[in-house]
Amino acid sequence: MIKKPVNGMKDILPGEMAVRNYVTELIRRTYSAFGFSSIDTPVVEHIENLLSKQGGENEKLIFKVLKRGEKLDLTKPTTEDAVTDSGLRYDLTLPLSRYYANHANELPSPFKALQIGSVFRADRPQRGRYRQFTQCDIDILGDPGYLAEIELILATTTVLGKLDFHNFTIRINDRRILKAMAKKAGFPEEAYDRVFIILDKMDKIGMDGVRSELLASFPEETVDAYLGQFASGTELTPEQEALMEETGSPLRAIMDCVEAAKTADFRIVFDPTLVRGMSYYTGPIFEIAMDEYGGSVGGGGRYDEMIGKFTGQPTPAVGFSIGFERIILLLMERGFTVPGAQEKTAFLVEKNMPKEKLAEIFKEAVALRAEGRTVDVSVMKKNKKFQKQQLTDEGYTEIREYFSR
Amino acid sequence: MIKKPVNGMKDILPGEMAVRNYVTELIRRTYSAFGFSSIDTPVVEHIENLLSKQGGENEKLIFKVLKRGEKLDLTKPTTEDAVTDSGLRYDLTLPLSRYYANHANELPSPFKALQIGSVFRADRPQRGRYRQFTQCDIDILGDPGYLAEIELILATTTVLGKLDFHNFTIRINDRRILKAMAKKAGFPEEAYDRVFIILDKMDKIGMDGVRSELLASFPEETVDAYLGQFASGTELTPEQEALMEETGSPLRAIMDCVEAAKTADFRIVFDPTLVRGMSYYTGPIFEIAMDEYGGSVGGGGRYDEMIGKFTGQPTPAVGFSIGFERIILLLMERGFTVPGAQEKTAFLVEKNMPKEKLAEIFKEAVALRAEGRTVDVSVMKKNKKFQKQQLTDEGYTEIREYFSR
Repeated sequence: MIKKPVNGMKDILPGEMAVRNYVTELIRRTYSAFGFSSIDTPVVEHIENLLSKQGGENEKLIFKVLKRGEKLDLTKPTTEDAVTDSGLRYDLTLPLSRYYANHANELPSPFKALQIGSVFRADRPQRGRYRQFTQCDIDILGDPGYLAEIELILATTTVLGKLDFHNFTIRINDRRILKAMAKKAGFPEEAYDRVFIILDKMDKIGMDGVRSELLASFPEETVDAYLGQFASGTELTPEQEALMEETGSPLRAIMDCVEAAKTADFRIVFDPTLVRGMSYYTGPIFEIAMDEYGGSVGGGGRYDEMIGKFTGQPTPAVGFSIGFERIILLLMERGFTVPGAQEKTAFLVEKNMPKEKLAEIFKEAVALRAEGRTVDVSVMKKNKKFQKQQLTDEGYTEIREYFSR
Repeated sequence: MIKKPVNGMKDILPGEMAVRNYVTELIRRTYSAFGFSSIDTPVVEHIENLLSKQGGENEKLIFKVLKRGEKLDLTKPTTEDAVTDSGLRYDLTLPLSRYYANHANELPSPFKALQIGSVFRADRPQRGRYRQFTQCDIDILGDPGYLAEIELILATTTVLGKLDFHNFTIRINDRRILKAMAKKAGFPEEAYDRVFIILDKMDKIGMDGVRSELLASFPEETVDAYLGQFASGTELTPEQEALMEETGSPLRAIMDCVEAAKTADFRIVFDPTLVRGMSYYTGPIFEIAMDEYGGSVGGGGRYDEMIGKFTGQPTPAVGFSIGFERIILLLMERGFTVPGAQEKTAFLVEKNMPKEKLAEIFKEAVALRAEGRTVDVSVMKKNKKFQKQQLTDEGYTEIREYFSR
């Protein structure tokens, strides 16, 4: 038998698990105060839905589940499609869309959903990235206005503030501004996606890198007209303000309201280079940047057309996914300890304790637990010194010993 | 695209999810007071481990995961074994054994583990039984004595008591007594498993049914000698007391200590007909019977040889699995409401609110949330009456309206 977990997945030890449970509870409580309701969907999803082109690159990374019984035929040459009927979800957005399509009649409108769950991607394993990991998404479905965006950003940043993260940045952009800037420069519409994939590398390869990659496919004057629009960094140029006006983008109002009502220590800045990978976004998009981490620790945006793919009629939707695994990683690195842990007492009971005495010991343990203490009752080992050291290491501050005579 | 979840799995609506989260938290807090530490293992497990004969009938119900990339060859006739490398776990006991084998050096001894997680079985779908469901196990690894059994039973019954379950029964038996009784009647050792499978049906087919099924395979005098031993029901006969003594079974001490220290309203009774399906049990076995449900809502036992299959050296182990899904079902049927829910206020904001006013509204929401209220900020809809009714149905007791002038 094999002791290690399957390739790319991990066992979670008690120390990390305590932090994960604490953060999960804090997130639930905080999002609940913003009116979000927890829901859950199966880990296994129809293969047809998973392969519906909503998942972009993630669709290449699906763990597929083999058909069972008579439906499975391996006796002759076959294909993946013929032998699989389902797969493990690679995100929580696609299952949420299916869920909402299935249950809209039973849910309020707008519906504010919170999902915390495992997702699976058969990515090349690398440090700190696993093939099963937890995502934590909030979504507001059925609200076309930008109040939803403000609520999402305030809720997410409140969680980060409560976890003592400071001085981070919310970068915000709008798919419509992104497109208007490309149009203004003269790119044809069918080239937008290619242009944005290159623009998305700005963080890694810088302005010069982006310029030379664009020049490989597009005329110099278009490229220069395009990149000229990014010269001001995160300060809004009058041209960009005009684009917001033209495209009807609510970024200005979102930024102002978030700035006024925020409870955590962060900045919200317009970033015209922010792309976000998924092509399903239709409006405002946002991302959390944290210097500590040197990258994104969450993001989201508006995707008004995805749910319509299930229902036939468009349903406005906007979501924000907090980078659960990255937050846990940062907290673990910081040596985070879960606040409010109970005082712990260990009872060491000599072997062969008469059962009447033993019953009294268990009654004593019950009484201490009723007072709010953690109590462990164990048999006294031969190497008692080592056993007591181990208990001390586990946080037991009191050790009581019971002898049979 | 397909709206329904995959066959046999279910979406969880907000009402049920709130109950599930509440119960999960209560379980964690209660078990933590008994010194159990939360851990987690991947949902995906090596196919070799899943098929290692530790899972009994469950091994026929595995969702198998297709190999990926170059490792997968479907171009010629092949087999399930050749095209799969992993599968979804069907219980939490096997992954725990692997986990402990992998991490024993990093863990205290004895190690008290709590796992709450999804397991998967491709069973025929039926009412109230799903192909993905939550299990909730506590296990004590590395403790050969029966203090572990007492701790497990006290912890589990404490949870049930806190959820207001009364008047249930813990049935308890010992694999060694089960075997001693079969031996005494004259069954050959290789027949024990067959005998126990029939005995296990006592609840369903009664003494007469068990008798006739046994007679189909075994001589009448053996069968009658065997069944004569069960005549007294749950009262211990002197012969059974003698068997406990002979086999070294600690049932008497377990029952007495549990009876003395219990905090919930239940009985613990010796039941010589209790079998528990899994063949890996080696000592005491137990089950929760609840009249309300008409069946088992949890069970467990000692399995001292399973972890040794991974490590090569036997490690004593005992576990108790609470029937999480059944408990949720019973609570939902009972109309259980989560205690301590926050007061809820809804803000309805007229469309096109000037952003200065809007910022003030969000600041007001933040202030109310800081006081511990749930606040939802949404756009006022055309059908305001319906919107307000919906909010009232969701538990919003106060609705504030904001107009742009």
